[in-house]
Amino acid sequence: MTFKEKLRQSAEKHGSKVILALDFSDPYDARLAKAEKVLDATKGEIAGVKVNHHLILPYGLTGLSTVIGICRAERLPLIADLKMNDIEATNINIVDSLTAYGFDAVIANPFVGREEGLGKAVERIHANQGGIIFLVYMSHKGADEGYHLRLEDGEPIYRVFATRAREWGADGVIVSAKATNKIAEIRGIVGDSCLILTPGVGAQGGEASDSLGAGADYVIVGRSLTGSSDPLKAVRALNSS
Amino acid sequence: MTFKEKLRQSAEKHGSKVILALDFSDPYDARLAKAEKVLDATKGEIAGVKVNHHLILPYGLTGLSTVIGICRAERLPLIADLKMNDIEATNINIVDSLTAYGFDAVIANPFVGREEGLGKAVERIHANQGGIIFLVYMSHKGADEGYHLRLEDGEPIYRVFATRAREWGADGVIVSAKATNKIAEIRGIVGDSCLILTPGVGAQGGEASDSLGAGADYVIVGRSLTGSSDPLKAVRALNSS
Repeated sequence: MTFKEKLRQSAEKHGSKVILALDFSDPYDARLAKAEKVLDATKGEIAGVKVNHHLILPYGLTGLSTVIGICRAERLPLIADLKMNDIEATNINIVDSLTAYGFDAVIANPFVGREEGLGKAVERIHANQGGIIFLVYMSHKGADEGYHLRLEDGEPIYRVFATRAREWGADGVIVSAKATNKIAEIRGIVGDSCLILTPGVGAQGGEASDSLGAGADYVIVGRSLTGSSDPLKAVRALNSS
Repeated sequence: MTFKEKLRQSAEKHGSKVILALDFSDPYDARLAKAEKVLDATKGEIAGVKVNHHLILPYGLTGLSTVIGICRAERLPLIADLKMNDIEATNINIVDSLTAYGFDAVIANPFVGREEGLGKAVERIHANQGGIIFLVYMSHKGADEGYHLRLEDGEPIYRVFATRAREWGADGVIVSAKATNKIAEIRGIVGDSCLILTPGVGAQGGEASDSLGAGADYVIVGRSLTGSSDPLKAVRALNSS
């Protein structure tokens, strides 16, 4: 089964288009337990799970065995948000580690290029029944110095990245939830070949219903769930909004 | 003491401009022990140590306590090659984790921009007596789709990134060792404000003496040391070349 199909099945089963981002800044002796608690509370009401360096950096994949175990037991696709942008040998090494430890997908930055960059990593993760998601449009202020720059021919880089996602075989693209007007534009480039995932819902100012209404497939939600006193109630509110 | 000063002192003490890249693809139950063995064999003959996802991803910072301990005992600056390119809150989280666990510096991709991107992470790691190194010029084939692209005004992105390194206060820049002709060009932009570190020596085709002769401050060497049957002999050969 492909990553896209796994995510669709999980979303249907749980009635949710929310991908829980397990981002915590708590002290290290409490952070992992808190992440496991929030995941355990919400696991029946989410479509998937994303972990970033908040957990991966201190604990590593070995230290995340409980998180991975919950996701596998619930068949929740698990995404490593590494914003991978290394050379080929390292990207392959990363993809193989993620697969070996039970992750389903990785987020990558297509800035690094295809040949001797991401190309073979896409093939490898697909061969492992996993997925790869490209960063295409971010909307923090500094994105003016990256995603929004225009190349010699006048094309903004985010449009080039969207084209790469389609042509290189990415399973999904990340498009900031603050940029709902960009979702249709990017859908026009990637068509049905890529899922659109929008982070930035909640603490970063976006609304889940706005993103989904604009055509996103899934919303990535971190702080408004991880920082909630009742994450289950919070995710249910998102699912019914 | 600044990161640059720590690296200079270590290089002088050990008579080396080699930064050992602990990149391994061995099975996970052997990889960490092998890394520790190579580090232990070469620790008196190197200027610093760089770890990438080969070790960070499976083991995390908690699992790297022996590697970190050797580096701290030998006062070898330890660099996390995360090619960090996230939003501000995550970048700060990463920098704080690295500091808490005993790392000295992080490698970042300036594509993500300054405001709400890398700006405050630079301030934070400097406040923690650490350093930050920007990816400026890579030379794998796919770099034509990133570092070598030209913007609307005709400027190639690697020159824009070199300017950012100087203006944003980066301690160093990464310039591929295969691009010795670019080292002087990038020195012309960063001046003495940034160290120039060149990876790609050995397995990737570059020569340490060529990079240093062209003006690089340090060479990053992975596979020709980590894959050697006698890493100590191999690093001594590099140091005397």
